[in-house]
Amino acid sequence: MKASEIRELLKLTEMPEIISFAGGLPSPDAFPTDIVEKIVSELMREKGKYVLQYGTTEGVSALRKALLVRLKETQGFEASMENIIITAGSQQSLDLIGKVFLDPGDNVIVGAPTYLAATNAFRMFQANVESVPLGDNGMDMEYLEEKIRQMEKHGKSIKFIYVIPTFQNPMGVSLTTEGRKRLLEIAREHDLLILEDDPYGELRYEGEPLPSIKSMDLDGRVLYMGTISKVLAPGLRIAWIVGEVDIMNKLILAKQPTDLCTNTLGQHIVAKYISEGYINSHIEKIRKMYREKRDIMLKALEEKMPEGITWTHPEGGMFIWLTLLEGMNARSILEKAITEKVAYVVGDAFFPDGSGKNTLRLNFTNADNDKIEDGIGRLAAVFRSEMSD
Amino acid sequence: MKASEIRELLKLTEMPEIISFAGGLPSPDAFPTDIVEKIVSELMREKGKYVLQYGTTEGVSALRKALLVRLKETQGFEASMENIIITAGSQQSLDLIGKVFLDPGDNVIVGAPTYLAATNAFRMFQANVESVPLGDNGMDMEYLEEKIRQMEKHGKSIKFIYVIPTFQNPMGVSLTTEGRKRLLEIAREHDLLILEDDPYGELRYEGEPLPSIKSMDLDGRVLYMGTISKVLAPGLRIAWIVGEVDIMNKLILAKQPTDLCTNTLGQHIVAKYISEGYINSHIEKIRKMYREKRDIMLKALEEKMPEGITWTHPEGGMFIWLTLLEGMNARSILEKAITEKVAYVVGDAFFPDGSGKNTLRLNFTNADNDKIEDGIGRLAAVFRSEMSD
Repeated sequence: MKASEIRELLKLTEMPEIISFAGGLPSPDAFPTDIVEKIVSELMREKGKYVLQYGTTEGVSALRKALLVRLKETQGFEASMENIIITAGSQQSLDLIGKVFLDPGDNVIVGAPTYLAATNAFRMFQANVESVPLGDNGMDMEYLEEKIRQMEKHGKSIKFIYVIPTFQNPMGVSLTTEGRKRLLEIAREHDLLILEDDPYGELRYEGEPLPSIKSMDLDGRVLYMGTISKVLAPGLRIAWIVGEVDIMNKLILAKQPTDLCTNTLGQHIVAKYISEGYINSHIEKIRKMYREKRDIMLKALEEKMPEGITWTHPEGGMFIWLTLLEGMNARSILEKAITEKVAYVVGDAFFPDGSGKNTLRLNFTNADNDKIEDGIGRLAAVFRSEMSD
Repeated sequence: MKASEIRELLKLTEMPEIISFAGGLPSPDAFPTDIVEKIVSELMREKGKYVLQYGTTEGVSALRKALLVRLKETQGFEASMENIIITAGSQQSLDLIGKVFLDPGDNVIVGAPTYLAATNAFRMFQANVESVPLGDNGMDMEYLEEKIRQMEKHGKSIKFIYVIPTFQNPMGVSLTTEGRKRLLEIAREHDLLILEDDPYGELRYEGEPLPSIKSMDLDGRVLYMGTISKVLAPGLRIAWIVGEVDIMNKLILAKQPTDLCTNTLGQHIVAKYISEGYINSHIEKIRKMYREKRDIMLKALEEKMPEGITWTHPEGGMFIWLTLLEGMNARSILEKAITEKVAYVVGDAFFPDGSGKNTLRLNFTNADNDKIEDGIGRLAAVFRSEMSD
């Protein structure tokens, strides 16, 4: 086992003098504390005896119902109560999917780079993680097809392809509609499962919404993962998985000995938050807030970064991906950055093979607006000094 | 994997016409909804930006501090912040301990009968579960010693001994102080770890408190598991593990890819509930409530059960253990009981080897007082009819 660097870095963000672009944290100003207070007050008065009791493993019915209505509206797919389970955050979704699908030596395909705690979760089950490079339009479908062919040729059976199609972590890029269709075709041809992880899809600041892969899934080969962490509050630990009934039943059996059930208070809070219509105006509010933060960071990068350093221009999500000059090492530079009281996540942590030494991830949603420009300035100075050495 | 029968039975308890003695559920009347409402209101106003944010994997500092103070008072042992981690309920504690300690083919020793979801959790890691019979004073220490000797003779290395020393689930019995000392001696002689699971220790209705095994642990071989589920609210999913620093560090590494962190709202609620002193008066209140329920059930059993059926007389906890006549089958009788609208958990589910066919577990904390007598009457009629067949 290997400690998650993001988790360790979270501790740094607790030091008030550090400007942290490290963790994938929402802005603390984005939490609707007044509405949560009101909802909990109503819950305690109206049905405290359910809200504080054990719940069923598959999750609170009121929440699953509210999510099905919302998923139809926002993601364009219909599902029934048997197709959805609640988990204690997307990390638990990944852990349960690993428990159900992965035996030692099994193969999975992920992006390079990709969410490092997903790779860690799959490796906990001793899976072999193969990767496919990402470009400005997400995962490279031609490369994927060739990769699958090569793996099949060598007798490597593949359990699933893991993708974050919209505002990908860590790059911030999205797979186009065409790319999504192609991914489904490839999966169909080779009879593979797709794991569609969609924590950021609703955080769009410009451009047209893209269809979820699940909405184009005709033969039940997409497992869709959603979460409330980025659009309401990660501290509630509420997420969901949507897929075929036989897979859901296996996931429920895997969840029972893992934690019996997800915290019921959090489930009921989210159920009311969605069903009483608070969520849409809240998402509007945080889109505006995060768009502004993204623009401040992009402008500061434009103004301050030395020639030769490049970065992505995400239409949504939480991250900008920086590429330093060839030969620069983001990991050794991080120590200097922390001395200058600014933090990021090193890019090689997101590559299953440890490549990408000259890349790094910046989060733009957590820091205060007036700190973003300052932090980018400090980073630019660190990089400039490194480049002149 | 095998579905947990208790979880499935929970669904039955949702049918209002069934009197359920099945699940290990607190009484819904025992939830301090007014205080939780007040605490959440204060939390949202005073520190909502922390309470709804991600937390560290080891748990919220305020909660760990509050628990250390309380554990010293109630369990008689001192520990530091590095010795305690927060988990999403005791079931997750068992899962994480399994992740850290168990490889396929490893051996663990449990009681017979014991908490079935513990056995299930250990078996998820393909451990071999050996069992030692329980009597009126908990696990049989002579048998345990002989068992360990036999296992060592056959080259079976043992990872830990799992015990619920106080008001054991499912029997309701407790290991005496002498038994606890003997268990520690045996563990020391054979250099074994003890997993002390203590969900019910504070639910004492008569008799003198027993020392925790951890309080007598001189060489760090006891991992102590506690939970808020039975004394405050299971729906919050908050529990803890106390032990040596090197073990804690491994558990933190195992928890990271499992769920990143336990829900922070629940952690802050419990921290305030303990540190602001609500917990002691609440435990007084539920002790009184549950003592009454236990006494109603014991009286009803005394008055109504046919000759030859016996049961335990627990000084605390949540369960009474019934032994039917030799040859009777609690599993086949359960169907008839459900037809008569009363439910229990079959005893053989708690035996790792599936024995105990003529035993069953009754929960006395969840049903309304006026239903307990009625339910025991229905059960007695079912058993009587079975005995006269």
